[in-house]
Amino acid sequence: MSYEAKLKEMGYTLEPLKDLNAGRLMLARRTGNLIYTSGQTPNWEGRQIYGQVGKDLTVEEGYEAARLATLNCLRAVKTLAGSLDNVVQVVKVFGMVNVAPGFVNTPAVIHGCSDFLIELFGDAGRPARSAIGLTVPMNYAVEIEMIVEVK
Amino acid sequence: MSYEAKLKEMGYTLEPLKDLNAGRLMLARRTGNLIYTSGQTPNWEGRQIYGQVGKDLTVEEGYEAARLATLNCLRAVKTLAGSLDNVVQVVKVFGMVNVAPGFVNTPAVIHGCSDFLIELFGDAGRPARSAIGLTVPMNYAVEIEMIVEVK
Amino acid sequence: MSYEAKLKEMGYTLEPLKDLNAGRLMLARRTGNLIYTSGQTPNWEGRQIYGQVGKDLTVEEGYEAARLATLNCLRAVKTLAGSLDNVVQVVKVFGMVNVAPGFVNTPAVIHGCSDFLIELFGDAGRPARSAIGLTVPMNYAVEIEMIVEVK
Repeated sequence: MSYEAKLKEMGYTLEPLKDLNAGRLMLARRTGNLIYTSGQTPNWEGRQIYGQVGKDLTVEEGYEAARLATLNCLRAVKTLAGSLDNVVQVVKVFGMVNVAPGFVNTPAVIHGCSDFLIELFGDAGRPARSAIGLTVPMNYAVEIEMIVEVK
Repeated sequence: MSYEAKLKEMGYTLEPLKDLNAGRLMLARRTGNLIYTSGQTPNWEGRQIYGQVGKDLTVEEGYEAARLATLNCLRAVKTLAGSLDNVVQVVKVFGMVNVAPGFVNTPAVIHGCSDFLIELFGDAGRPARSAIGLTVPMNYAVEIEMIVEVK
Repeated sequence: MSYEAKLKEMGYTLEPLKDLNAGRLMLARRTGNLIYTSGQTPNWEGRQIYGQVGKDLTVEEGYEAARLATLNCLRAVKTLAGSLDNVVQVVKVFGMVNVAPGFVNTPAVIHGCSDFLIELFGDAGRPARSAIGLTVPMNYAVEIEMIVEVK
């Protein structure tokens, strides 16, 4: 099954963006066969997830936030690559969790990204990854950036 | 106008460094057509900006710190590339802000980097970007690293 | 002297891993001549180093933790590259220190990584680097990721 067909089966449609220019940054940039996304937040179709995981949010809510941020990454990748069927592999994910002091189970949050990528791309979606805790812009629950190799 | 001429018009001259070797690190490394800078701090021509944004420093002071760190990035890039006129695009900026607890407007600080790059390089300077909050070495206000594609 | 011989002289043997697949992530991924490692922690041969540097751990203990994380990075690189003798250069190190509030001497901790790389690879091991403070998964003392160029 093609990645685009698989995504539809998973219940999602990603419309390419008209413009990746977000003023002070590009949502993604390509060099050679690599696409670098900007850090993406859980802001999807009018829904935002804010707060510190470990205080305002549970791990499960953080996991869901990581899934939404992943959708934003993939939409930016699709805009540059033309189609997700041009994805060769997800090289790297840098997963940043907006943590309350003392919350250290950041991998469980970023699993929301990994699980989505692996369901969609299979082995090609299992990235090299870091998943750490810090302060995310505007108090969003997570921020995720990726490097994706495309045809 | 060439990028070097534009930089002069902006009031800056960047002298290439004699040596990028800083002991335990290189200020920048090149692989293929990509230059990776080390994280650079606001330490420029004898001036340093220290402190936590949101407590010791205002957003405006953080913005200025981001501009100084950007100059250090560009000097390292120029040293490896020979001239800024060899820059093809700024692929990625990872902007790290030294934040006080509760300060989340980190993008406004890293705009000091983006604005400088876009003024200098035009559209080629608008990077994929993340701008997050954490603890910067030696309490510098910001630390910025870049990936720049060169000819 | 070959890098593999040098490593042996330094007292270490790195056995390639049977599988880089760690479930939700790959311990390293290759694209072209670049290997990206996942963030690696100080968990080496049954020994783990946990805690916040500046509170639970001294700089010296953090330095040792950085050395152990580096061994994990290099083992993942060797698994993909076949032999450390195929290393061309260490392009980039992103060193993340699990800091207590107020601890800002993060470079001194990540020197444990740089010193090991430079002893092993010489000038080719001196990376572009950032060394910052944040919250590391499961309260490990450090997390380190690398980009390594290989033949």
